[in-house]
Amino acid sequence: MGTHLLNASDVSRFVKTVFPEANSFGLKIDSLVDDEIIVSMTVLPEHLRPGGTVSGPTMFALADYAAYLIILAHIGEVALAVTTSLNINFIRKPEPVGLRAVCKLIKLGKRLAICEIHVQSGDNNLVVAQATATYSIPA
Amino acid sequence: MGTHLLNASDVSRFVKTVFPEANSFGLKIDSLVDDEIIVSMTVLPEHLRPGGTVSGPTMFALADYAAYLIILAHIGEVALAVTTSLNINFIRKPEPVGLRAVCKLIKLGKRLAICEIHVQSGDNNLVVAQATATYSIPA
Amino acid sequence: MGTHLLNASDVSRFVKTVFPEANSFGLKIDSLVDDEIIVSMTVLPEHLRPGGTVSGPTMFALADYAAYLIILAHIGEVALAVTTSLNINFIRKPEPVGLRAVCKLIKLGKRLAICEIHVQSGDNNLVVAQATATYSIPA
Amino acid sequence: MGTHLLNASDVSRFVKTVFPEANSFGLKIDSLVDDEIIVSMTVLPEHLRPGGTVSGPTMFALADYAAYLIILAHIGEVALAVTTSLNINFIRKPEPVGLRAVCKLIKLGKRLAICEIHVQSGDNNLVVAQATATYSIPA
Repeated sequence: MGTHLLNASDVSRFVKTVFPEANSFGLKIDSLVDDEIIVSMTVLPEHLRPGGTVSGPTMFALADYAAYLIILAHIGEVALAVTTSLNINFIRKPEPVGLRAVCKLIKLGKRLAICEIHVQSGDNNLVVAQATATYSIPA
Repeated sequence: MGTHLLNASDVSRFVKTVFPEANSFGLKIDSLVDDEIIVSMTVLPEHLRPGGTVSGPTMFALADYAAYLIILAHIGEVALAVTTSLNINFIRKPEPVGLRAVCKLIKLGKRLAICEIHVQSGDNNLVVAQATATYSIPA
Repeated sequence: MGTHLLNASDVSRFVKTVFPEANSFGLKIDSLVDDEIIVSMTVLPEHLRPGGTVSGPTMFALADYAAYLIILAHIGEVALAVTTSLNINFIRKPEPVGLRAVCKLIKLGKRLAICEIHVQSGDNNLVVAQATATYSIPA
Repeated sequence: MGTHLLNASDVSRFVKTVFPEANSFGLKIDSLVDDEIIVSMTVLPEHLRPGGTVSGPTMFALADYAAYLIILAHIGEVALAVTTSLNINFIRKPEPVGLRAVCKLIKLGKRLAICEIHVQSGDNNLVVAQATATYSIPA
């Protein structure tokens, strides 16, 4: 499971064509090594909640997105993986600053892939959410 | 658990003041009876994914939102509940039309509340996602 | 999804041959109608925890078992479904009496099946746990 | 969160008095350092499934148990934590040999604790299941 077919710039380029919202999210692949990807996002006014924290759906979207990217790196551009389930735990309220997701591919089967994701916030990378995502791999 | 403190119009009014995005989501409480709430939303261009389906984060947000509202109806305006975890299964791809969430409060404890949510799509109310949300109730 | 290939006695007979522990669990199918199965179990001393409650693994096993049975009823004896994930919420401590699971098949796809399960306890069928189980269907 | 109140032998001794089944499970704390515990178990005939694999409830029980022990180490003997939810993904079928759980405490709040667990099998510590457990901490 350690080798991937696409590198960070391949993945970024492909995603920008198929997911236009990747651009508006300000998503950026910070690193892609073996089974782990680190993806950062800019937090914009529409991602905030009253009280100055980042919304749950924003953290969900970042976690889901990081999982999609690491799977894409391993199965290649042709395939279209879709999320079948996502379990997320909100650990503490993030500050209204940029987020990053550290995502590990822990299973890549013929039909299912599973990732563990930590969503981190701020300069000290405090873990604000933990998620497990399952994707279906097309035949 | 059957009685609630706030009715549908109380909940709608309160939410519009504390969650401005509720307005942009076009969220509407269709019914609120005992432990069950039905919430519908208008699907806008920003909620769509390539291929003409609704994004996962949109379904997540609707499920989470419906859970928040039914808990609010039962604990009243003063309290501030926050999501601690949400588990969502995507069952089939929704058409790019409005969604509705049917949400049942299955536990209302002193510290935790748990809801089950079915996200439905289209005129025949096909279930497109199933979620379980856990909220922390403030002391 | 409404019709099943096997009825309650077919399912019971098949399971007794492939899962000998079904007998020791005292598992019994109370009803099997369309997409819903109700399975009851006898709670034995080995299922108890100090303080006179039923252990979490016992509730997990019952929920998982009920899901297996409703899927089996729909796909038939030849196929072998395996649990890919199970999310369980413990709602209140059960009394040390028999349990029953009310399990609904909410998706039966070519590759995945999803069930929602309520584990109930006592004469008034108080919900003590809520679970969502995902099974992989063999090709 | 790095320091714990009890060490491995304190935890083992306490658990043997309150959970008699810990003995029959052959559970053993292999290590307890800061926020991580490693717990191994002997797999006995009653933990097996037809086909020579370990049952899902056994893996669930081990994951839940490891989470309980790391929380106990951090909050001390007086408190009684209870599982509120557990999400488990089954990754591959284990061989019918001993299992071990590597469990990390990722949140220890006043009311909730969250752990991530990898259940491993065999000499090469292949990950056979991944779980996230949430515990309620008593007041």
